[in-house]
Amino acid sequence: MTVLTSRTDLDIDPDKLRESVASLLERHPLAFEGTRQLALQHRPAATDPWYEGCLRQSLISSDSDFTEVHAELRGSYLGEVFDRLPFKPIRTRIMALDPKHCYSVHRDMTPRYHLAVTTSEHARFVFVEHGKVVNVPADGNLYYVDTRHLHSAFNGGDDIRIHIVFGTDNEQK
Amino acid sequence: MTVLTSRTDLDIDPDKLRESVASLLERHPLAFEGTRQLALQHRPAATDPWYEGCLRQSLISSDSDFTEVHAELRGSYLGEVFDRLPFKPIRTRIMALDPKHCYSVHRDMTPRYHLAVTTSEHARFVFVEHGKVVNVPADGNLYYVDTRHLHSAFNGGDDIRIHIVFGTDNEQK
Repeated sequence: MTVLTSRTDLDIDPDKLRESVASLLERHPLAFEGTRQLALQHRPAATDPWYEGCLRQSLISSDSDFTEVHAELRGSYLGEVFDRLPFKPIRTRIMALDPKHCYSVHRDMTPRYHLAVTTSEHARFVFVEHGKVVNVPADGNLYYVDTRHLHSAFNGGDDIRIHIVFGTDNEQK
Repeated sequence: MTVLTSRTDLDIDPDKLRESVASLLERHPLAFEGTRQLALQHRPAATDPWYEGCLRQSLISSDSDFTEVHAELRGSYLGEVFDRLPFKPIRTRIMALDPKHCYSVHRDMTPRYHLAVTTSEHARFVFVEHGKVVNVPADGNLYYVDTRHLHSAFNGGDDIRIHIVFGTDNEQK
């Protein structure tokens, strides 16, 4: 069972990525406590485009409807990252996990690509049915994570874990 | 590498245990946010006997100094549980983990015996060096957990996880 594989050919600079995300979060803060988020894609006619994609799955329409990258990202390094993707992303979000916090154990409807912005070796995915415990390093690589398997992620480190999570309708490219 | 083994011969009733703990927590609430605690053993001359054992390891003297079980527990089911232990417990605590919370990844100086009071299958220990993901069920059995290995525990379920954690100076009995 493969839950995680990486794409190393996108040539993303981890430092530029971190700076671009930090600058964005100054203008648009993360929402929610503990498991914090900001939406980077929205539905074409969104009234709350930075946050509507952060609501829980049962409260929103299909991920496939969240197709639009914020116009504000054009010209930023984050915008460049979107341009380099080898797949069509949907409902992309910045997902941040504070120290001593974890997600509820769950399955996603679709697999995801994860790009770690800041993390530590003590922030891990746990695939509970398979006993797999894996870390996504902030190395500029894109990691395909098959989150259709029952999983959680916890942050047992001292610093916040920030991932960009790209949704996809497709199997791994 | 064995990180967890159980003692099934103590004949602890999970329902009576849960009631006894609930009654105690009404009188002495858990301290701290998210990763909450109450000390069941204290030092002989303690001025704050219910809470001094809850402080972080670096702020207290050796676990071996926390030898006294609260007199208030005599006659309660929790007191009976202490009487049945096949080892001398030290610095025993009630440790509660709220949903969506986890511990920092760490090693303890000594192994521990865990007795789960309330939990779910989605509350797990994670031994990060060995990739082991284990659950301690609330079945009235005492589980020896070798927490000298680097580990965390996370609560990915919907309900609070409450364990009684008995310290021990000794290897498994």
